[in-house]
Order: sequence, then structure tokens, then C-alpha cells
Amino acid sequence: MEILTQMQSKRLKSAFDSSWRIIIIVAVLVQASILPLDFLFDLRANRWYWVLDFSISGLFLLDLLFNIYRYKKIRSHSVLKDVYWDTYSSWKYFIADVLAVLPYAFLLSGPLWQLLRLFKWVKVFQTMRHFQMRNIRNTSSILFWLLVFGTFLFSHWCACMWVRVHGIEPGLSNVDNYVQALYYTVSTITSVGYGDIVPHGNLEMLFNIILQFSGVALLALLVGSIVGVFTKKNPAEQRFIDNMEKLRALIHYQEISKDLEHRIGDYFTYELKQKLGYDESELMDALPFGLRNELQLEFKKNVIKDITLFESVDDQFVREIAQYLKPMILTPGDYLFRAGDKGKSMFFVQRGKLKVLSADELKQLTILRTGDFMGEIAMFKKTERTATVVSIGYSDIYELHRKEFDKVLKKYPEIAEKILVKSKSREERYI
Amino acid sequence: MEILTQMQSKRLKSAFDSSWRIIIIVAVLVQASILPLDFLFDLRANRWYWVLDFSISGLFLLDLLFNIYRYKKIRSHSVLKDVYWDTYSSWKYFIADVLAVLPYAFLLSGPLWQLLRLFKWVKVFQTMRHFQMRNIRNTSSILFWLLVFGTFLFSHWCACMWVRVHGIEPGLSNVDNYVQALYYTVSTITSVGYGDIVPHGNLEMLFNIILQFSGVALLALLVGSIVGVFTKKNPAEQRFIDNMEKLRALIHYQEISKDLEHRIGDYFTYELKQKLGYDESELMDALPFGLRNELQLEFKKNVIKDITLFESVDDQFVREIAQYLKPMILTPGDYLFRAGDKGKSMFFVQRGKLKVLSADELKQLTILRTGDFMGEIAMFKKTERTATVVSIGYSDIYELHRKEFDKVLKKYPEIAEKILVKSKSREERYI
Amino acid sequence: MEILTQMQSKRLKSAFDSSWRIIIIVAVLVQASILPLDFLFDLRANRWYWVLDFSISGLFLLDLLFNIYRYKKIRSHSVLKDVYWDTYSSWKYFIADVLAVLPYAFLLSGPLWQLLRLFKWVKVFQTMRHFQMRNIRNTSSILFWLLVFGTFLFSHWCACMWVRVHGIEPGLSNVDNYVQALYYTVSTITSVGYGDIVPHGNLEMLFNIILQFSGVALLALLVGSIVGVFTKKNPAEQRFIDNMEKLRALIHYQEISKDLEHRIGDYFTYELKQKLGYDESELMDALPFGLRNELQLEFKKNVIKDITLFESVDDQFVREIAQYLKPMILTPGDYLFRAGDKGKSMFFVQRGKLKVLSADELKQLTILRTGDFMGEIAMFKKTERTATVVSIGYSDIYELHRKEFDKVLKKYPEIAEKILVKSKSREERYI
Amino acid sequence: MEILTQMQSKRLKSAFDSSWRIIIIVAVLVQASILPLDFLFDLRANRWYWVLDFSISGLFLLDLLFNIYRYKKIRSHSVLKDVYWDTYSSWKYFIADVLAVLPYAFLLSGPLWQLLRLFKWVKVFQTMRHFQMRNIRNTSSILFWLLVFGTFLFSHWCACMWVRVHGIEPGLSNVDNYVQALYYTVSTITSVGYGDIVPHGNLEMLFNIILQFSGVALLALLVGSIVGVFTKKNPAEQRFIDNMEKLRALIHYQEISKDLEHRIGDYFTYELKQKLGYDESELMDALPFGLRNELQLEFKKNVIKDITLFESVDDQFVREIAQYLKPMILTPGDYLFRAGDKGKSMFFVQRGKLKVLSADELKQLTILRTGDFMGEIAMFKKTERTATVVSIGYSDIYELHRKEFDKVLKKYPEIAEKILVKSKSREERYI
Repeated sequence: MEILTQMQSKRLKSAFDSSWRIIIIVAVLVQASILPLDFLFDLRANRWYWVLDFSISGLFLLDLLFNIYRYKKIRSHSVLKDVYWDTYSSWKYFIADVLAVLPYAFLLSGPLWQLLRLFKWVKVFQTMRHFQMRNIRNTSSILFWLLVFGTFLFSHWCACMWVRVHGIEPGLSNVDNYVQALYYTVSTITSVGYGDIVPHGNLEMLFNIILQFSGVALLALLVGSIVGVFTKKNPAEQRFIDNMEKLRALIHYQEISKDLEHRIGDYFTYELKQKLGYDESELMDALPFGLRNELQLEFKKNVIKDITLFESVDDQFVREIAQYLKPMILTPGDYLFRAGDKGKSMFFVQRGKLKVLSADELKQLTILRTGDFMGEIAMFKKTERTATVVSIGYSDIYELHRKEFDKVLKKYPEIAEKILVKSKSREERYI
Repeated sequence: MEILTQMQSKRLKSAFDSSWRIIIIVAVLVQASILPLDFLFDLRANRWYWVLDFSISGLFLLDLLFNIYRYKKIRSHSVLKDVYWDTYSSWKYFIADVLAVLPYAFLLSGPLWQLLRLFKWVKVFQTMRHFQMRNIRNTSSILFWLLVFGTFLFSHWCACMWVRVHGIEPGLSNVDNYVQALYYTVSTITSVGYGDIVPHGNLEMLFNIILQFSGVALLALLVGSIVGVFTKKNPAEQRFIDNMEKLRALIHYQEISKDLEHRIGDYFTYELKQKLGYDESELMDALPFGLRNELQLEFKKNVIKDITLFESVDDQFVREIAQYLKPMILTPGDYLFRAGDKGKSMFFVQRGKLKVLSADELKQLTILRTGDFMGEIAMFKKTERTATVVSIGYSDIYELHRKEFDKVLKKYPEIAEKILVKSKSREERYI
Repeated sequence: MEILTQMQSKRLKSAFDSSWRIIIIVAVLVQASILPLDFLFDLRANRWYWVLDFSISGLFLLDLLFNIYRYKKIRSHSVLKDVYWDTYSSWKYFIADVLAVLPYAFLLSGPLWQLLRLFKWVKVFQTMRHFQMRNIRNTSSILFWLLVFGTFLFSHWCACMWVRVHGIEPGLSNVDNYVQALYYTVSTITSVGYGDIVPHGNLEMLFNIILQFSGVALLALLVGSIVGVFTKKNPAEQRFIDNMEKLRALIHYQEISKDLEHRIGDYFTYELKQKLGYDESELMDALPFGLRNELQLEFKKNVIKDITLFESVDDQFVREIAQYLKPMILTPGDYLFRAGDKGKSMFFVQRGKLKVLSADELKQLTILRTGDFMGEIAMFKKTERTATVVSIGYSDIYELHRKEFDKVLKKYPEIAEKILVKSKSREERYI
Repeated sequence: MEILTQMQSKRLKSAFDSSWRIIIIVAVLVQASILPLDFLFDLRANRWYWVLDFSISGLFLLDLLFNIYRYKKIRSHSVLKDVYWDTYSSWKYFIADVLAVLPYAFLLSGPLWQLLRLFKWVKVFQTMRHFQMRNIRNTSSILFWLLVFGTFLFSHWCACMWVRVHGIEPGLSNVDNYVQALYYTVSTITSVGYGDIVPHGNLEMLFNIILQFSGVALLALLVGSIVGVFTKKNPAEQRFIDNMEKLRALIHYQEISKDLEHRIGDYFTYELKQKLGYDESELMDALPFGLRNELQLEFKKNVIKDITLFESVDDQFVREIAQYLKPMILTPGDYLFRAGDKGKSMFFVQRGKLKVLSADELKQLTILRTGDFMGEIAMFKKTERTATVVSIGYSDIYELHRKEFDKVLKKYPEIAEKILVKSKSREERYI
């Protein structure tokens, strides 16, 4: 469909999009870092400051134009308009951007106009939110960098304010003055408080009191977000941990044999390592009908393609058969079926090894591996199983019931023919 | 009903009610702030202190009278008596208020009587609870201000106590004395501890020990409440985050195509942005039958009113049809139905665009938009669909089954007539 | 049954039991507090120390004997043996107690023997656990006192160790030495660290390093337990908060009328205040069949006794009818039933006021109050309702279906008679 | 099956396996501790350092060889390959190990090559993960030791870096220099900050700033993990606490008799103490069919073996009967059945005492104890119960319905015979 193609071409451009956003964030950070230094030490006397400042202004102007362009394009798009976060969704975002660019013009008149540049922060927060919302793969690292840069900028601004409150010590260079102030500020907000530099006079003391409280708030914020990260886990790992804990509690309260305990532990580990630990049914429930179907198909398509029986069948057939395949896990030594059981379904090996034994379980007929299928003869003929199948290690099996298979085959008689021929050629060998 | 009107008129007065409560809280805070200063520096020598003190006393007296009045009115009210928190629900609240007003009379005899005024705090906590319970829109800001004012008052009282324990330093003004004490206290309870001011003698040291422990307790309290806030989220956003996390885990453990991954991510974003992310069924379950019905009606009423088919139908009809409308979401490219499907229901577009294609899916017949309806012909005639409908972007659709529609139309034959006429005029065009 | 009587008589003695346990805990605390002081300042020179020490020894001996007696009694008891925590369930508890008493004999030989007394702590932890497990009403206060005493004792022991490490300063009295050490220790473990007293030499520094880390551990412990308390809430209040949050989210995402918003908020407040907020069904699920039945009976017994219809019926009848009563809540203005509805059940007013209106809803026939019942005529006669009943404020109603009522009445024909007579006398009046 | 035997023999070797891993971890820790000291104080001048260094190198070499051997063995194993964590699952782990051994060869050229040894940390983290994943019994202690060693090593490295930054003070011995640096570092990262040692110059101050922030991060990490531990509990104890809290809330909101309150509390305590508090059904749900069956059998096998009726029956019979036994708990005074009830099932006493009363409940016929069974006569003969059975204390009972019993007995006619004979011999006595 042309809609989807359009969406994909959009995504190709998103690498450029993300890079541009990061450049703007870096520019804003640089701007916010040098601004207070300019206020303190009159950096405008230096040439490099002018170059830097002009560059940042230029970037902001470009960003403004780019945002206007992006806004126009997204607006008319059927899908993107519903999923984009950081466009000019309201006037205030546009005005903030314009105000951030303006000081470029008033630059000559004084540093205070520069403060208007801080309006660009609106953009930063909007971009952060966009990244957090749209970046499916790594959100926790965004939070981490937010905390790191936030803490750095907070310390930096406080240090500059302290220099202002305390006065520049004349005997020291600008750098020394700043490092000392930063050292003092950090030792206060981390609540270390060496006491080699202390406030004198009411103003300094009051500034200090605020600094100390903000230190406590910072600590509480850090702890809060770290606790949040600690209590949050990958759902599959969480499931493993919960299961192991239940096993632990069971062992504590009931006597079960050491062997069974280990076999249960092994099973949970297998489930986690083989990536089956994650229960996708919850995600499925949150999706609308269309997406749910496609996701389910995607899972089983890989499996079905591996199965030799279905080689070179068309997509529509796979789509139909997929919904009827039911997954099963066999632990080492588990029987899939025994000779004499009724044959109501056939099985496909997704992963693992199983041995086929003669009816008396004395002779090993063959080994089944990934992609093999079994039990189709008894299923088609509605007779009893003539062999016994045991899992050697762990095996992931898909089961397909006769009823559902018949339903699909009726629609695709030519595939039915092919499958029967294939399974005939096997009949001679065993089962 | 007259009960409801009475309730609404009550609510108009609640703006005044809230303002009065906030004034009283401010008065109590001022009272609690100047009281320890009075003990230390004999503020009663100043004229402004007398004025302030008299004003607060007056306010407390007015509040006492206002509370008595409110108590009487609420008592006899059928609804309010069950939902109000801060009336004189027991004698102790009344006595606390009386004790807080009394010192007015004993003012001349000494500052110790003033301490009785602190009984007014009972009222503050009661009011806080009322706000927290009754204010549906912003409770977390109440907790924030409670923490800020609590920390401020605690530091203030500790500073005053330190001046008392340490003695007023004669060389310094009252203000200098206080600021120094506050600086020392804050540096202790935030556990910074510069060490430029240290306790001397056993009494000061013991006071200090208590102060340090209370600092730790304060920190633990702050962290505890901030962690509480961090782990709590808007249910809709929480749902989005949970869903995205499940998607993330899926990608980590299973190979799914990049395109499908993005389409699922887009869907969750759409759900959140279009405000459909919040699952109201849980709230519905917590409500009694009457309220549940009304809430459900309220949701769908807006939608039904938008639908041109139901223009100018009466409220009773809307009420009945509302309960049978079932919401659906279509993602870009999803089919609503295809030509040849059986027509068992009709659909209403709440939001989005859908294209109607000819049976061979080659010709685009028309575009359906918010307020349009479709599929009614096949539904009435019990025939197959003659066209195919595909969603262009995301669409919110309501489905109405024939069975339920028939049930409602039987009761309202004149509306049935109107609908048939309308749908006839469309039949000529397509479908 | 004699079992239950026995249990109750046991409980009468439990007041003495609890008091004795608290006395022993206090004795252990005193013992643990003076022990390190004795090591430092040779308290055995003082007379009062001897008296105190002998008293504690006596108490420990008494406790040992009392515990042996208790153990014997509980052992043979059919119920208590399964629910008591702090008896000599294993040999180690008994040996710990004996070791704690022994030093009494060796007292003369030196203070080191005293250390054996600390084995009594085993008892304290066992008692704490018993209180926590068996005290149904207030467990969080136990945790609080545990933290307070734990912190105090830890600081006290550390201070004493510091005096040992640092040496007693000769110019100062014992008390001064101790207070200074405590001040230093607390300023370290709370991480304030004034720096007026600092360690000198490697030994002091290493001691100090341990102290600082234990301070961090203490802080983490305090924060951890406080966060635990913050995130835990009374289930009824938690339910209210959750419901309000859902309402808040709804308002944020959907437009609903201000009036309906307030009515839903009012309903949740009513549910909380009238103590109906707590959903007992979860507790019920955790109970075995016998207790579940009794608990359900207990709830409804009070209600049934209030109902005039069942005055002076016997307990067995109440027990049977109780299980069939279904609770309902009506919000202000809700209809209980309207004239013309089919009468399939009758209703009992547990709380609230309802007005009975004539069939045309124009005339108010009567007001129903707590203990009243209604709808029994239509139910018995299987006819339509002849009046309309509307709730004025909030009402708690119990519904009883005809089917179930008939079942019970068949077993108690004499009560059936009485009820019919009563309801006949009402028929004249209305309905 | 030979697979399982193979698995068990593997497990016997795991004690050696674990010990070896711990030795390697200790070696890595020692290595990481002495490395920075070597950089500072040129330890290579000492003989003992050479011996130690050679030993560690030897251990690392042995571990490399052992890991290669283990990897080969596990690779070909049907079960272990799916549940082992710390083998060379990818090339990078192998390379890290080789790099860690290499410095042995380059040792003579300088200490910088030693840094390559730190690649062995990859192994440590891998081992930690293995322990955490595979150690079913005690994971929280692993986290504890990780925190302790992590904090120690971090402080140690920071102290060494401080000596480097600050310079070695010439008047002091190496030990004094190190202890002072450690004291300073710890006082900074615990945010105590005495201030007797303070940084001078920009470099020291910047180092200090980083140290202070890392202290805050450490604190947040500690608090985070401790909060995690605090909020996590043994599922059985958690269940008890939740139940008690629900009971507490109930008492708060509803009037229930003191006696019933205590009886419910007693029941929950019983459930916890008798180890039945843990609900294994959740664990069962997480297991595949094969393991679930075996676990269920394991629980009930012990019980069935205790029952005299099933003495000397074969395993297959036990396996079949096990799945039909349904557990029940009787509280003191509960009736199991009364004379006159229909006999549809028989009961087995797993634990507890019950008295058998005559039909008029006046005469006590006998006492039933652990391993006894009852009610089989009425069940076999399909008649009414002829006696009444009451639980004295708490009793754990298994119920077996006639239908299911018949099903099993049909398959084992010889056991059916034995049971009938046994129950005949009882019939004479009572019931």
C-alpha cells in the first residue's frame, strides 16, 4: 500500500532528523554553560566567544526554519500527525523558538538580552519527550543523561551565582575563582560540607541555606529515580526472577527432592535463555485486531518456513496455518506421545532433538531435529500411534490439530496433494 | 431534581469556602512563625506585632463562628453530610478551635498563653485532609506545599531553639543572630555540617544530637515522599509506558520486522495522544449502577450528536442507542470490511478518514469522515457488502449490530422512518 | 464449645503476658545500655549499679521460669501450639535464656561475663516477632520503636567504643567524656561531620571509616523502611485514592460534565467515610469455609437485627437469611424501582432515607428509614410494583430475591406466618 | 533414564565447580586491591609481591584451561547447554580471559601491562550472573556481597588516586599515607566531610568534585538496592502480612466480635507456621505439563505414604490417586461431617486431631490422628454418615471423591481388595 511505503521513506530521513536534534541540544547546553560565565567574567572581550555565539545563533535560526518546514509536512500526513511529539503543536512553542533566535539581533546592546536565548530550553524538553516517547529501544539512557547534565548545569549555575554573591577574589585568576566556587558549591549540594570555605554575612548565609536545601532535594531526586530504575526490570527477566522466587519459597516450606528442584530451576533458565520467557500474550491484548494478527503471523512465519513440509507454499497459506499452531515445551525425558495413543494431531519441531522409539521402546528408530515434523500418518489415517517419541533435551514443538488442518487444506487442494506425497515417502521408513 | 440543584448552588459557594480556608492556613503559618521570635526577642514591644496579633485573633474568631454556621448547615444536608471532611465531626475539633481563640483574652498576661494558639493546627491538618480528599484535580501539589512549609517551619523553630540554647550573641543584631542560627540549623539538618559554628558544652551537644537525627529523619521523609511521587503516574501514560516496555522486551527476544515494530510503536503513541489510552472500564467497575450508566452515556453522547444520521433525535433515543455502540480502532491500511462480507452491523466514524473502494478495489468511490456512517444498506437488507472500506490513517469507529439496532428502532418508529429515508438517498450514490 | 471458652480464658491472661514481655524488653535495653558504660567507667564501684544489676538478673531468672511454664502449657494446647511464636520451639532459644541468666553467678569475677547476658537479645527479637505476628491492631508502631531503639543503642555502643579507641580525656568528667563521644559519633553516622573533633592516628581513622560506612548503611535502612511505610496504605484509603486517580485521569482525557465529575467524587468519598470502601471479598477468599460463613453472618447480623420484620426471630433463621442478602448502594436521586416494574425481590434499608412516590411520581406517600423494608407485597403476589421509590441521599440497601426467601421460609413456617401478618398490616397503607 | 543420571553426576561435580569459581573471584579481588598500591608504592621491590603475583597468574591460566574444557563438555550436552551462563558463549569472553593471562609474560617490562589483568573482571561479572541465576537458595546474599566488595574496592581505588593527585607526604610511612587517604576518601564519599584534610589547587578540587558526586551516586545506589530488598518478601510471609492487613482494615471499618477477630488471626498464623501459607498453584501455572504433574505427585506422595490404608501399594497407584486428593483445612471446632449427611467422599488426615462423636453428639467414640482415614464405609455403601466428626485443633485433611476413587480402583483390583478388607475390620468398631 502506498501509505506504508510513504511511512518507510519518512523513516529513512529520521536518522538525519535525530542527529539534527542532538546538535541543537548540544548547542543549547553550550549556550547555557557560557552564559553565566559571560555575566561574571565579561567573556565578550574575547574573540572566540563572538564566533561561538554567532554559530549558536545561526544554528537556532536554522532550527526555527527546519521546524516550520517539518510542521507543514507533518500536518498533512495521515499517520505522522498522530504520532509526532515535538512540532509546533501550539503557538507557544513557536514563540519560544522565535524569542530564542531574536537576541542575535540585540547582541550588541548587552548580555541581558542573551537570557531570552534560554527560551530554547522549551525545545530541549520537547525533544527529550519526543525521544523518550518514540525511541523504542533505549529510554533509560535518556533519563540517565538528563540527570547527569541536569546536575552539572545546576552546579555550574550555582557556582556562578556564588561567585556573584561572594565577590571575585582579586588575587586569583578567573579559572581559580570559578573552580573554587564550584568546589564549594558541590561540597554543599552533596552535603559533604568540608568547612574550609564558609559563608560570611547574612546574604551569603541565606544563599547557602537555599543551596543546602536544594542539595537535599537533588539527593532525594537522584535516589528516587535510581530506586525507580532498580524496581523496574525487563519483563522476561522479571518473570524468571518471580518464578525462581516461588520455587525458593516452595523449597523453604515443602520438602521436594533435590533432583526435581534442579529440574524446575533448569526449566526456568531454559525459558529465559531461549527467549521464550517473555509472554507476548499481554502485548497482544493491548493491540487492535489488525496488528495482533500480523504480529502473530510474524512469530510463526519463521518457524513455518523452517518446516520442510511447507517449503515453497504461498504466503496466504502460511498466514492461515499460523493461527492454528499451538506452542509446547518438552523438558528432557518428556514423552511427546507413546505408541498406542490416539493420533489427533501432528507436530513440528521448532527447536531441539527428539528420539523416535519402536513401540516396545527398545529400539531407537531415528532422531528428529529442527524443521522436522511427525505424527501426520496417524493423524491423516485416524489410527493409533505406531511409535513413541521422547524429547532428549528441551524441545520447542508446535502442535496442529487435524480439525484445523483439514479446514485449511480444503481451501488449498494443491498443497494438500504435495503434503500427502511427502508424508507417503516417509511412511515406508517408520511410524 | 431539586437535590441536584441544591448541590450545584452549594458548589458556587465553594470558591469562597476554599479562599477562606487558605486565609486561615496563612494566618496560622504567620502565627507559628512569629511566636518563637516573640519568645526570643520580645517582639511585643513593637506596635506592628500588636496589630498583627489582633488581626490573627480576629480571623480565628471569625473562623470559629463560620465553622459553627457551616456545621449546622451541613448537618441537615442529605448529600454534603456524607462527603465533607472538616466540620466539627467530633467535640475535640470544636474545643481545639475555642482554645486557639481564647489567648486573645489572656494576651496581656504573657506570651506563654500564646502557645494555646497552636491548637489551630488541628484545623490546618483537617483542612489539608479536606483539600486532599475533595480536590479531584491536583493533590500532589498539596503534598509538595506541605513538605515545603513543614521543612521551613521545622528549620525556623529549631533555629529559634538554638538561639535559646546557645544564648543571644551580644555583639550582633537580632537579625544577625537569627540568620546565623538558621544557617547553623540548616547546615546540620541537611547534614552538610561545615563546622564553622559548633556546639560547646553538654547541653548544646545534646541539642545538636537531636538536631542531627531529625535531619536524617527529614531526609528519609523527603526521599520517601519523592520516591512515592516518582513511582506514581498518570494511568494513561503508565499504560503507554508499560506497552512500550512490552514491545521493547519482544524486540529483544524475538525477531520481528523493523516495519512492524514501528507500526506497533506508532499505534501506542496514537492511543496515548488521542486520549484513548485511558481504559475507563476500571473506573466503571468501581461505580454503582446509576453513575456507571450516566458516565457511559456522557462519553458516547458527544459522538452520537456528531453523527448526521441522528441529528435532532431526542435524548431518550440517544440514551438507549449509546449502550449498544462498541468502539473499535483501525490502524493505517486496516480493512473495515470487504466487498462480499456479510453485513451484520453498521459503523459510525468518530474520528479519522476511510476510503470506500469498488468491489474490485480498483476505483475509489468516496472518502468517509468524522460523523459519517456506512454499511447500513447491507445491514437493513441482510445482504453482502457491495464495497470495500479501508482506513487511511488511524480511525476511531463505533459499531452497531443489527439485532440491537432493531430493538431500539421498534420503540421509536418515527426515528426508524427518518433513518431509512436518509439511507435511501445514499443508496443511489454507492454501496 | 469448650475449646472456645478455653481460648477466651487464655486471652484474658494475655494482658499480663504482654506486660511481662515489655518489662523484659525494657530490662534488656537497660542492661545493654549500662554494660558498655561499665566497661569504660567501672560502674561497679557504685552501689546503685549493684542494685540495678541484681534486679535485672532476678527478672531474667523469673522470665526463664515463666517461659518454661508457658512452654509446657502451650505444648499440650490444641490451638495455641499452632499460633504462638515465642516459646522454646527449639533448644537454642532455651540455651540462650540460660546463658543470659548464668552471669548472675559469675558476676563477682569480672565484667566480661556480663557479655553473656546479651544472649537475652535472642528473646527480644523473638518477642518482637511475636508482637508483630500476633498484634492485629498496630504493627507499624512496633517497627518505629525498633528503629528508634536500634538507632539509639547503635549510637550509644559506638560512642563507648570511640571513648575506648580515643582514650578518656583526663581533664573532663565521665559525663563530659561520654557526651562528647556521643556528639562525635552521631555527627559521623548522620554524615554531618562538623570536623571540630577528628580522628588522629591510623587506629582512630580506621574506626572512623567503619563508622562512616555504618552511617550510610543506617541512612539507607531508615530511608528504605520509611519508603516502605510511605508506599503502604490502609486498603480502604488506598481504594479511595486509586478510584480518585482514575477519575482524575478520566477528566484529563475526556470531557465530562463538571456535575457528573463531582457526583462521582462524592460517591467515592461517601464510600470511604461510611466504611464501605473496604472490599471484604478478598479477605473472605483467604479464609476456609467455616470462618468465611461466620464472618459473613457477623456482618449482616447487625443489619438483620435492625430490621423490624425479623424482630425476635431465632439465630438459625438469621444465619440462613444472611447469606442471601445482597448489598447495593443508591446515590442521591437513584430509583430503587418504579411503578410498573416487575416485583422479583424485596429490599431492606440498612442506612439512608428513601421517599415512596405514587405511581405518577407526583405525590410523596412516605419516607423509608434505617430498618424499614419494602417491596414485599409485589414480591409475594408476583405482581407489578404499585409505587416508585427514590433515594434522597446515599442509601445502603440489602436485596433479597423471592426464590431464596421462599427457600428459607419453607424451613421456618412459623416465621413465614409472622412476616405475612406484618406485611398485610402495611398493605392497607400504601404500595 | 540415562539423561537424568547424567545430569545428577554432573551435579556432584558442581561443588568443586563453585569452589573454583569463588577462588578465582578472590584472586581477582586481591589482584584489583594490590594493583593500585603497586602503582603508588612500587611493591615490586618486595619478594612477597612476586610470589603473590605469580600465584595469581597461575590461577588465571588454570582457569582459562578449565573454562575451555568446561565449554567443550557443556557444548555437546543436551540439557546443560541450555541452562549454563558463564561459558565462552561468545568470542569476547574468551579473548578477555586470554588478555588477563597474558601480562604474566610481560610482567618484567612494567606495571602498566598489569592493567590488562583487569579483563578478568568480565569473568567475575559472568560468574556473579551465573550464581544469581542458578543458585536457587540464596540470591540476596550475593547482592549484599557485591555491594560490600564494590564499595570497598571503589573506596580503595579512589584513595590510591587521591595519593597520586595529592602526592605522597614525605614525613609519613606508606601505611600512614594510605590510611589517611582512605580516611579522607571515605569521609568524602559518605558525605561526612570533616574538613581536617581539604583539597588545595584546581586539580585536587576537580578530583574532589568528582569524588563528592560519586558519593551521592553510591548513596543513591545503596538506598535503591536496600529499598528493593525491603519491599521484597518471601511469598508465604507476604501472603500472611497481606491477610493480616486486610483483617486490620476490616476491624477498623466494621464491628466484628473480638473472638472472631482472634480466630481469624489465629488461622492466618497457623497457615503461615504450618508452611501451608505458600500457594503453590502460581508456580504450577508457570510449569509445563510434565513438571507440573511430577511436582504435584511429590507433594502428596509423602502424605499418601503416611496413610495406613495405602501401605505397600505400588508407585503407579500413588501417582494416580495423588491427582484426585483435594486439600482442606478445618479450624478448631469445625465439623468435617455430621451424622445424617450423605457420604459422597472419604477423608485422610494429613495432620491434626479429630474426634468422632456418636450420632447424638453426646458420646465420643474415638480420636483420629495423622495417617488415619474415615468415611469410607458410607462412601462405598452410598449410605448416610452414622457418626459426626469434629476437628479439635487445626486439621489438614485430604478429600477423595467416590467417583475418582472408583476410577482408580478399577485399574488396580488387587489394591481395591486390600482396602475393602481393611475397612471391613474397622466397620465392627464404629461408623
